[in-house]
Amino acid sequence: MTTDLPESAPTGTIKALITPALLLDQTRLDRNIQRLARHAKDLGVVLRPHMKTAKSIDVARRVFPGGPGPITVSTLAEAEYFASHGYRDMTYAVGLSPASARRAMEISARTGAEVKLLLDTVEQADALTEVRVATGVTPSVFIELDCDDHRGGLKPDDPRLPEVADRIVATGATLAGLLAHAGESYGLSTPEALEQAAENERLATVRAAKLLRAHGHACPIVSIGSTPTAHFARNLDGVTELRAGVYMFFDLVQHGVGVCSVDDLALSVLATVIGTKPEKGWVLVDAGWMALSRDRGTASQTVDQGYGMVCDEALRVLEDVIVSQASQEHGILTIRPGSDKSMPELAVGTRVRILPNHACAMAAQHAFYSVVNGDSAEVVARWERIRGW
Amino acid sequence: MTTDLPESAPTGTIKALITPALLLDQTRLDRNIQRLARHAKDLGVVLRPHMKTAKSIDVARRVFPGGPGPITVSTLAEAEYFASHGYRDMTYAVGLSPASARRAMEISARTGAEVKLLLDTVEQADALTEVRVATGVTPSVFIELDCDDHRGGLKPDDPRLPEVADRIVATGATLAGLLAHAGESYGLSTPEALEQAAENERLATVRAAKLLRAHGHACPIVSIGSTPTAHFARNLDGVTELRAGVYMFFDLVQHGVGVCSVDDLALSVLATVIGTKPEKGWVLVDAGWMALSRDRGTASQTVDQGYGMVCDEALRVLEDVIVSQASQEHGILTIRPGSDKSMPELAVGTRVRILPNHACAMAAQHAFYSVVNGDSAEVVARWERIRGW
Repeated sequence: MTTDLPESAPTGTIKALITPALLLDQTRLDRNIQRLARHAKDLGVVLRPHMKTAKSIDVARRVFPGGPGPITVSTLAEAEYFASHGYRDMTYAVGLSPASARRAMEISARTGAEVKLLLDTVEQADALTEVRVATGVTPSVFIELDCDDHRGGLKPDDPRLPEVADRIVATGATLAGLLAHAGESYGLSTPEALEQAAENERLATVRAAKLLRAHGHACPIVSIGSTPTAHFARNLDGVTELRAGVYMFFDLVQHGVGVCSVDDLALSVLATVIGTKPEKGWVLVDAGWMALSRDRGTASQTVDQGYGMVCDEALRVLEDVIVSQASQEHGILTIRPGSDKSMPELAVGTRVRILPNHACAMAAQHAFYSVVNGDSAEVVARWERIRGW
Repeated sequence: MTTDLPESAPTGTIKALITPALLLDQTRLDRNIQRLARHAKDLGVVLRPHMKTAKSIDVARRVFPGGPGPITVSTLAEAEYFASHGYRDMTYAVGLSPASARRAMEISARTGAEVKLLLDTVEQADALTEVRVATGVTPSVFIELDCDDHRGGLKPDDPRLPEVADRIVATGATLAGLLAHAGESYGLSTPEALEQAAENERLATVRAAKLLRAHGHACPIVSIGSTPTAHFARNLDGVTELRAGVYMFFDLVQHGVGVCSVDDLALSVLATVIGTKPEKGWVLVDAGWMALSRDRGTASQTVDQGYGMVCDEALRVLEDVIVSQASQEHGILTIRPGSDKSMPELAVGTRVRILPNHACAMAAQHAFYSVVNGDSAEVVARWERIRGW
């Protein structure tokens, strides 16, 4: 099930890894995966995990130990990759251009995988005729719904909604259904507000599905999801499937929203101390934004985690130590502003682990995961990631 | 001199590229390279370009058309890569840990390239004995100088400076000299302040070199540099070499500092319009932070460029159009706040080019450059980039 470490890679323990290195705790990963799988089952919906965070067949195999299941992808490179590993049911959850729609159908024709498309305008719908004729594949298409003013999509009461549905069908394509993403839920922080956002996402989508059905469209799939709303949904009547991605790893932004605890965070960057400035309370490490990403998603939350929360090598949190500055290959560790703690002694050569603000962004900076389990230092596998478009 | 496009890659014009795609304008690249080369020559110093931005042998060949020259690297992966392409004189400008020092000397032993090291503590110096004995390579070592409270390094008047020098020599290593980086210059914005920062960088380093020489250390290399100070230095008496990296491509941060004009920016991301929300003044493109990076370096400058300034396909600036929001694979184009311009019509399928806040960060999100020349749409080459550590 896992890719063995190649002979050339450092084997044994994390002490042998070149730093900075991306570590993935398989125990936490599995626990996070099971938590949402159980919740989706309890709610009676299909879980269609988003592979944009993990971008790894080995992680997908932890989600689907019985073999390929339905997935969401954020790039057609992901679609090609997962199709090559036997995945047959994918939703490409980014609005289509004529060129991307054509490429998606070419991937379908070549691999036999269905790559469902997303759109929200009649212009995009109209482009499907040519795509269908050129590729010989009948596109299966979602209309994107805007439930919270977040990004793309039509409002449930937008008169263009049935018009777009009609135009999709007129091109010979299939209307797969409706898709919404409550992206604004990332800005929330109380259980009540999250439950409300989840219910709002459900209501908006179910209402739009009813409207389309009244216009004669079956609208078989009603797809919603974001990691916060997926976990806080209490009732998904009328919804058929749930999407989420970052839930597999979780991160400090999700912790700030209130979806997970720090102990759920499965991803960290292993770094080495390369300098100290005791007079400033600084410890320098060899992980800058190239390893951590430039993401500052916690800056707008109640607790600003800088470029990440710092732990020891065994993933025990060093209280109030954060990466407060980052340049390309340097991170500066300090005590969090306002804390009464003092900086622990961290000599040159000491290893620390840094938890991500945003798991998708941190993981994207790395070519592979070094897989560990709990507080064991043993590296049990090396899992490659894909990139590009 | 260039890598030909592989058969499988889209050839011909940028219209055939999958978006988002990283474009590199070779005409601007060559002009930027020549500008600083001329300036270094006029000042009578060696230019040791930093390869952390380009990470590409093909770009290095534009800098050194006559064959490998002295370079700076930010990772040992870069050191290995450039050594494999015949580069023999490198400075690894990140503070050493015992493990990285050993790996650097192993690269030296294997390839014959000199990989000069950097440190600022006696503890780091002391670790060199074991590295030298274990690898059979005599380390050549810089002491890092702190000229502006920026990051690592010792102040020129720090009594530890001669002590660290003595300890380096005591381990049997060679003291290569002093290295400073005026990183605080990125926060400046007037020619006077930049000239002053350059002069300060020079004075601090020359002063420290004198001190070391008074203690009996030859200190042959006196190395300074950052892109802003490198361009604004008017006199480099006492300095032997200049380092800079982002100058090859330039970016909006450097434009905000006042080092370049927008017409000097050699890098852009080609993106496709995938949706519009006219009621909000939004145009959605298929380039989010995965393609642009999360860097918001212009947020603290006089003009905030969001996630990048937007141009048409021929790299003509669309006045006051910026990427004001970015999620993983979506960018939202709007008119800059406070502008009296209105959003140009950009239909689904239209291509735009987005200029980077920070070239190092944008380039790091991509596996290769599609190389173009001026306003020609022809893709003349595909240049691979390296990543990792």
